[in-house]
Amino acid sequence: MRMYDLIAKKRDNFALNDKEIAFMIDGYVAGSIADYQMAAMLMAIYLNGMSDKELAILTDYMSRSGDCIDLSGIEGVKVDKHSTGGVGDKTTLVIAPIVAACGGKVAKMSGRGLGHTGGTVDKMEAIPHMRTALKEQEFFDIVNKHGLSVIGQTGNLAPADKKLYALRDVTATVSSIPLIAASIMSKKLAAGSDCILLDVKKGSGAFMKTIDDAIELSEKMVSIGAAAGKRTVALITDMDIPLGNAIGNSLEIIEVVDTLKGKGPEDLTEVCLTLAQNMLYLSGKGSLEECKKMAEKSLRDGSAFDKLVAMVDAQGGDTGVILNTEKFVKAPYLHEVIAQQEGYIEKMDTEKCGIVSVILGAGRETKESVIDFSAGIIMRKKVGNYVKVGDVLAVFYTSKKGVLADAESLYKEALTIGTHKPAKEPLIFARVEKGKVEKFHS
Amino acid sequence: MRMYDLIAKKRDNFALNDKEIAFMIDGYVAGSIADYQMAAMLMAIYLNGMSDKELAILTDYMSRSGDCIDLSGIEGVKVDKHSTGGVGDKTTLVIAPIVAACGGKVAKMSGRGLGHTGGTVDKMEAIPHMRTALKEQEFFDIVNKHGLSVIGQTGNLAPADKKLYALRDVTATVSSIPLIAASIMSKKLAAGSDCILLDVKKGSGAFMKTIDDAIELSEKMVSIGAAAGKRTVALITDMDIPLGNAIGNSLEIIEVVDTLKGKGPEDLTEVCLTLAQNMLYLSGKGSLEECKKMAEKSLRDGSAFDKLVAMVDAQGGDTGVILNTEKFVKAPYLHEVIAQQEGYIEKMDTEKCGIVSVILGAGRETKESVIDFSAGIIMRKKVGNYVKVGDVLAVFYTSKKGVLADAESLYKEALTIGTHKPAKEPLIFARVEKGKVEKFHS
Repeated sequence: MRMYDLIAKKRDNFALNDKEIAFMIDGYVAGSIADYQMAAMLMAIYLNGMSDKELAILTDYMSRSGDCIDLSGIEGVKVDKHSTGGVGDKTTLVIAPIVAACGGKVAKMSGRGLGHTGGTVDKMEAIPHMRTALKEQEFFDIVNKHGLSVIGQTGNLAPADKKLYALRDVTATVSSIPLIAASIMSKKLAAGSDCILLDVKKGSGAFMKTIDDAIELSEKMVSIGAAAGKRTVALITDMDIPLGNAIGNSLEIIEVVDTLKGKGPEDLTEVCLTLAQNMLYLSGKGSLEECKKMAEKSLRDGSAFDKLVAMVDAQGGDTGVILNTEKFVKAPYLHEVIAQQEGYIEKMDTEKCGIVSVILGAGRETKESVIDFSAGIIMRKKVGNYVKVGDVLAVFYTSKKGVLADAESLYKEALTIGTHKPAKEPLIFARVEKGKVEKFHS
Repeated sequence: MRMYDLIAKKRDNFALNDKEIAFMIDGYVAGSIADYQMAAMLMAIYLNGMSDKELAILTDYMSRSGDCIDLSGIEGVKVDKHSTGGVGDKTTLVIAPIVAACGGKVAKMSGRGLGHTGGTVDKMEAIPHMRTALKEQEFFDIVNKHGLSVIGQTGNLAPADKKLYALRDVTATVSSIPLIAASIMSKKLAAGSDCILLDVKKGSGAFMKTIDDAIELSEKMVSIGAAAGKRTVALITDMDIPLGNAIGNSLEIIEVVDTLKGKGPEDLTEVCLTLAQNMLYLSGKGSLEECKKMAEKSLRDGSAFDKLVAMVDAQGGDTGVILNTEKFVKAPYLHEVIAQQEGYIEKMDTEKCGIVSVILGAGRETKESVIDFSAGIIMRKKVGNYVKVGDVLAVFYTSKKGVLADAESLYKEALTIGTHKPAKEPLIFARVEKGKVEKFHS
């Protein structure tokens, strides 16, 4: 078999078969297929696409190119969640406790933040002494005992994806829906859970700019999941407004606690309940309606909050700050951003809000940056709010007084204030299950 | 400017502009653009195509990536000819003398053979002492004095094409009509003539398998030529039958001499007259009709033959073998291939005939192979001939008796003998001039 012939086949819009895809992925990871040949193949896939069958095979070989996590040491149905990433996205730390409180099992590996988006593992480390690197047995034991554990990614998951992604990144082949689907799902398949809930972000700053694209990506990922024998559902959520009011690590943990106590921001609460509901549904805990009630009850009766406390305790974290969030170390400088203009907030540039939080110290500009856990933003006004001159738009928290002027000016750029009250968009646009697409309107 | 953005632009089917193409070609030749990025670009061009304007710009930058030959030291209108290559194609050595005899100027650089096709320079070197590497001034002097000189390629013509071709060859992007057009024309533009006649081969063994493809390629090349200010015409000729009866270096020179004396094979004579007619037309020597008459006359009155003798003499060659072709060194072994089957020759596999000639010693299997000038094939029967058992199909000439059995068996494989008299195909299928396509039928 020659890579040349496989490129020619895909170039001429024929489907690649199992052996051909295995040859291509194995050869590329082993280094016997050159970058320039794979680059030509990726562009051919970009322009000619891939059938669902090809995509399932491709993802399977990508997922098996490195370590495959065996979660059989954990009893019951394990359910994973993937998010395509977003500013202020702290949903994992709300959802996992809800699911665990309702009898589900969440053994989840999460990532760190880079650039304008934060990472769940960084947020957890804002809790003093919290351990996010656990040995496998301890990880299993905690999930078996409490129903949940969230740790940093371990092992060498889907190295084929890492290598392909690096090449796509320099050959303008990232934004291919089939290739995005294979990339995400290869890591989720290798991560070992039985069912997968996908949180697909849609918005001007996301890969998926339109609902149609987001639905297409969701359908492809749901189809890949089904082919791999994993129950999979995708929810398409809004990325045009940061979720909740807090951006920054300990600020977000405080918001997580508030939400688990039933006092969180409405938008965050609604999205988390819907994600948790679907994870419980995938875990076989009942109908969607029943799962919704279960999830809501876990917030009311405090059982979800108790699960967060249990996980923090089991992973060595200081439960004191969770039980009383006043105990979190506070940033030395607080700064109120004041409106100088009256009108509706018509739009927010989520990416710019994320960059402001990085400037304040809450994120990493490079892999080596050190995070200031206390830094960040509390947004007081969001899209749809009417503001008057003198209103507080947001409060900044930082240890670096010198950055405040730049941060304020960029934050104001991120907001579009005008005379039109923006139409209310749904928080969740659509739900995709195998063979079924449901769209929601507000 | 970033190559990434150019790839994305072509991927999304937008046209690249002058500055972008310059950046891409200069960067690729300089090594600042990586093979994998160019591979993705080539596949995007393959699948999305290029406009005539883009193609003219691309070819221009490719042609200017290395040496550009300045032929201004030669008086008058210089006319070049390009052939996409063929087995037994000795047309250059017939045409250049005809054109020179009619007052045209041919200052031509030709190539050597590799694999199953021969090269004009090798054929010339079958003439003892013939020099095919001349200093520029001597080359110019000979053309100024005699109207023609054919030498081996000198200088570093269109290195961008060399580098791109090598990459296309391993990324399944060779068979793109726009990229083929740019490749051929970049070298022709760098070679410096004022007008260009393109001999585009069509047939099962050629890049262009159909007349439509051959016409498309011709139109693109004619358009590139026009954009560069060079009068350009393309003739689409048959590649499904070797041209003339001889394959092999001194055998082909003998056939060239016969043809210039008006005693050559009909097919070769007809094709050469048409090519020469069009070169004279491009040189402004008259209407097509007038140029045809001029060319025919040069064969009848011996003036074309005299030009060959003059060129051989000027380039140090032994005119004795030209004036009396019996003086060529003869191969030690002659072998007749006898028909064992009666019927029409329905088809000939030109590529296999070429390989047989290489086996007999007439060509190069690798760049280092030494050519046996006396080796080759005289075909006695070609497509359309009726053969009886015992007829001589061909005569082999070789110094290697041991290869005869293999050569005979492959030669017989190359012939399809059956009961159907094949329809007579025209030797020249079509003529393409700027804005004008003319198809011919037999």
